[in-house]
Amino acid sequence: LAENPNGLYEHIEVLENFAMVAPGIYRSSFPKKKNYQFLKRLKIKTILFLAHEEYPDAHVEWMSQNGLQLRQHGVSGNKEPFVEIEPQVIVNALVTLLDVRNHPVLIHCNKGKHRTGCLVGCLRKIMRWCKTSIFEEYRRFAGIKARRADQEFIELFETRKVTVLAEHLPTWLYDEWIEQSLTLDKS
Amino acid sequence: LAENPNGLYEHIEVLENFAMVAPGIYRSSFPKKKNYQFLKRLKIKTILFLAHEEYPDAHVEWMSQNGLQLRQHGVSGNKEPFVEIEPQVIVNALVTLLDVRNHPVLIHCNKGKHRTGCLVGCLRKIMRWCKTSIFEEYRRFAGIKARRADQEFIELFETRKVTVLAEHLPTWLYDEWIEQSLTLDKS
Repeated sequence: LAENPNGLYEHIEVLENFAMVAPGIYRSSFPKKKNYQFLKRLKIKTILFLAHEEYPDAHVEWMSQNGLQLRQHGVSGNKEPFVEIEPQVIVNALVTLLDVRNHPVLIHCNKGKHRTGCLVGCLRKIMRWCKTSIFEEYRRFAGIKARRADQEFIELFETRKVTVLAEHLPTWLYDEWIEQSLTLDKS
Repeated sequence: LAENPNGLYEHIEVLENFAMVAPGIYRSSFPKKKNYQFLKRLKIKTILFLAHEEYPDAHVEWMSQNGLQLRQHGVSGNKEPFVEIEPQVIVNALVTLLDVRNHPVLIHCNKGKHRTGCLVGCLRKIMRWCKTSIFEEYRRFAGIKARRADQEFIELFETRKVTVLAEHLPTWLYDEWIEQSLTLDKS
């Protein structure tokens, strides 16, 4: 929050398509340099990046200087008829997301609509939200760009494929959700 | 989360137009009976209701049985050209909202678009969000029903009129925000 020449604080440049998903979990579009202050304010520890592209050098450098870690789960967005999100990548991303050692975590792709919307939708499925509510939230962020294929992906996603360590799960995950939705790693 | 005859848990009926605003603060449209379980899951302590109408008997009874308190701040939505939100009511609602003794709190009006959007917009102003980001969030919930008058209300709202006790403010409010946006009650 830089002081400007008039002695007033500048207003905060919030991440585009930004929202709080759950305690310790945020979502947005691709961060820009002007959002660094906002990321610091949120005390983000992990950036969960859902794309194949190499992360920008400027961001990597800033993150290293400020103690943030990058967790990249390369997803190709659903582009019908031939490109589909690979469920296993979303399974892996959920393992990262549900580990409090990575919190606070910011999920982002490019626009924060499709790939991010799919990951958040699968998280809501773990939280036992009904489909109506999951799709309502998906569409709130995707707007006119909402994709049928993304909603279908969320509907068909098998949350049981997500294997997690009980000790690092967020405290706001109810025991029934864990029993009903996830697989516990007993090792 | 009721078990159904097949031994599977029902899916949770999430509040319409629901979202997490900040730690301990949620927003939605008018709750229905089927949302009671979800309200319990969120551990809601206070319902901050932004309308003049009497709260439904069924809700009042359920809240009393479950230890929730109602804080009503009667607002008439902006309906041009003659009906305008009274800033003092939003000032009072913010005092309720920024007191952690009321958290977790659920803000709602009827649709969770206009009056709720104005209150959340004024909270974002206290948090020093730039107008672009405040209006982006407002429109995400209001959609095609977005009102120019609501956005103007947020822009012109004087956050300094909100007088609060420092000891009960949420810990995520930064000192600069408090200094720049609010008035502290020194009594």
